[in-house]
Amino acid sequence: MTVAVLGTGLIGASVGLALRAAGSEVIGFDATPGRAEEARAAGALSRVADSVAAAAAGADLVVVAVPVGRIAGVAVEALDAGARVVTDVGSVKASVVAAVEERAGAAAARFVGGHPMAGSEQAGPAGATPDLFRGAAWVLTPTARTGAEAHTRVRQLVRRLGAETVEVSPEHHDELVALVSHVPQLAATTLMDLAAAAGEEHAVLLHLAAGGFRDMTRIAASEVGIWPDICRANRAAILDALDRYLAALGRVRDLVGAADETGLRRLLERARDARRNLPATATLAGPLAELRVPVPDRPGVLAEVTTLAGRLGVNIADVEIAHSIEGRGGVLVMVCTAAGADRLTGALEAAGYHVSRRDLP
Amino acid sequence: MTVAVLGTGLIGASVGLALRAAGSEVIGFDATPGRAEEARAAGALSRVADSVAAAAAGADLVVVAVPVGRIAGVAVEALDAGARVVTDVGSVKASVVAAVEERAGAAAARFVGGHPMAGSEQAGPAGATPDLFRGAAWVLTPTARTGAEAHTRVRQLVRRLGAETVEVSPEHHDELVALVSHVPQLAATTLMDLAAAAGEEHAVLLHLAAGGFRDMTRIAASEVGIWPDICRANRAAILDALDRYLAALGRVRDLVGAADETGLRRLLERARDARRNLPATATLAGPLAELRVPVPDRPGVLAEVTTLAGRLGVNIADVEIAHSIEGRGGVLVMVCTAAGADRLTGALEAAGYHVSRRDLP
Repeated sequence: MTVAVLGTGLIGASVGLALRAAGSEVIGFDATPGRAEEARAAGALSRVADSVAAAAAGADLVVVAVPVGRIAGVAVEALDAGARVVTDVGSVKASVVAAVEERAGAAAARFVGGHPMAGSEQAGPAGATPDLFRGAAWVLTPTARTGAEAHTRVRQLVRRLGAETVEVSPEHHDELVALVSHVPQLAATTLMDLAAAAGEEHAVLLHLAAGGFRDMTRIAASEVGIWPDICRANRAAILDALDRYLAALGRVRDLVGAADETGLRRLLERARDARRNLPATATLAGPLAELRVPVPDRPGVLAEVTTLAGRLGVNIADVEIAHSIEGRGGVLVMVCTAAGADRLTGALEAAGYHVSRRDLP
Repeated sequence: MTVAVLGTGLIGASVGLALRAAGSEVIGFDATPGRAEEARAAGALSRVADSVAAAAAGADLVVVAVPVGRIAGVAVEALDAGARVVTDVGSVKASVVAAVEERAGAAAARFVGGHPMAGSEQAGPAGATPDLFRGAAWVLTPTARTGAEAHTRVRQLVRRLGAETVEVSPEHHDELVALVSHVPQLAATTLMDLAAAAGEEHAVLLHLAAGGFRDMTRIAASEVGIWPDICRANRAAILDALDRYLAALGRVRDLVGAADETGLRRLLERARDARRNLPATATLAGPLAELRVPVPDRPGVLAEVTTLAGRLGVNIADVEIAHSIEGRGGVLVMVCTAAGADRLTGALEAAGYHVSRRDLP
């Protein structure tokens, strides 16, 4: 398999390292002079191309790993150059997917939006590692226009990189990451800035910062580069999540001001339990089940079912469409945990599908 | 040396383990039945006493490691029982120190407020470790009423535990920890609670939480026990710091809303640089210097000079008062880094002291 990586920063170079280790040919391009060559020297690329089109032409799969503001342009250029399937790794999805679908026309069926929930304080090829995605959640945001072949190929890529696919709609993705990524980044940045400003007056302050403060502000040390872009591309969802955070902090202020120990204790206990129950990884655990769902032969059915699973928090370990030799429909075959299968079956039947289930040994 | 540890939770038991390893006799008491015995079985105590007074009587040094709301009562009881020197490890200092000074009368000269900036998600003796304080900052809050012998003994204790002493006034301590400890705890708790509430509707959400979110909310998993107490005891400083955090987050909201990329970038860069420059530990590095400062023989001089050093962020590695054989004054001898010595000399001379300096080989 030949994969093109467009943009060879931390994520792009890590994809390259992992795929090269798995035996793929990886062609790279980066608009910053010398950066693709640096990634090649580090073993992340088989060879360097001199343009987006040259890298993408004839590639089985193209991974667009450029800043959010440039993804749609590069993805459309790759589709136009003849790439069979294109995906991206941007932190914001709704505006990116909409722009690709608007500009690529029918070719948008070959595009699947993606976002690996993995990163590092290190940016650039120097921080790249083939294990960056192992055990991480990797969001895909297929839509009604996404073709089944593209969808299946990108799922396979994610699995080869050691990550677990989670599928949600582009809009839903943006709301969720505002809450677990963008607002936390801004909250940590603000806290660090506030402490640093006070530290100018009271030099001792930062010496007092114990492990909790260090943990909490660690993400503030990450590269600035991507954030103004993300704040612009996901502005509405970030503002909404920030407003909810401000309102919640205001309620905490009221609890402290009123010395409401019962209310404070209730909040602290709820958050403690939630943090302790935070799933360690997205990896499937426990017994598995196979669900078979007859589906009509129309675009978007796969996306509809898998994003429903994502919404329910059900990880789909494996999915394929078994086309019948006769007739126009097919059977969607999915593997997920037995517990997830219960939830998913209920939701699918409520949506009008007929589901048959088999527990796997 | 005989040390009494009153309260054998995480901090108390860790103090016991470290001192036992260094050869001290450690007597323990805990109001919770069985807990001191548990600490003894774990090696943190030489023996268990059956009351505060029994543990404190005759002890060279008493470490009070009970919840903030009970510190003053236990410390006064220990002083009354005849303990030579008493210190505490509470997270809030102004209200505690004021209560001890009010209730203990002249005996308050034998009390020094303290607060090790070290902790762990684990609470109780089970999480205790003799290395808990190694390299950590340990705040002491001597006042004008603190005696030199008590002050010196508690500094020695901190050094034996592997921590670095930082001295500030009780009120200043409370402002600083509100900013680097109490508000961060509330901010992480609130963020976790917000995400958990959204996660009830969208189960996929918490699977998306990548490393940054995990780091940032880690402290929300800690034991709830101490926090309502801390919020009550340090209410004014916490409200002040929370208000500054809310105002700063409101300004960030405005930057995002206005898509002010320049402003966002400036904020992110400032916070990134501050986080990267966060001192890793309080340990002294670089060439050292000795300062000699003639001081009058009046109470509080030592506290005045060391808290001035704390305010400037100058760690004092060693301090003693060399009393002259004749006359009533003495010479305060301090060792700190050469760079710190420059700043401290300037501040001391501005405050009317005469300083002589010698660079150490």
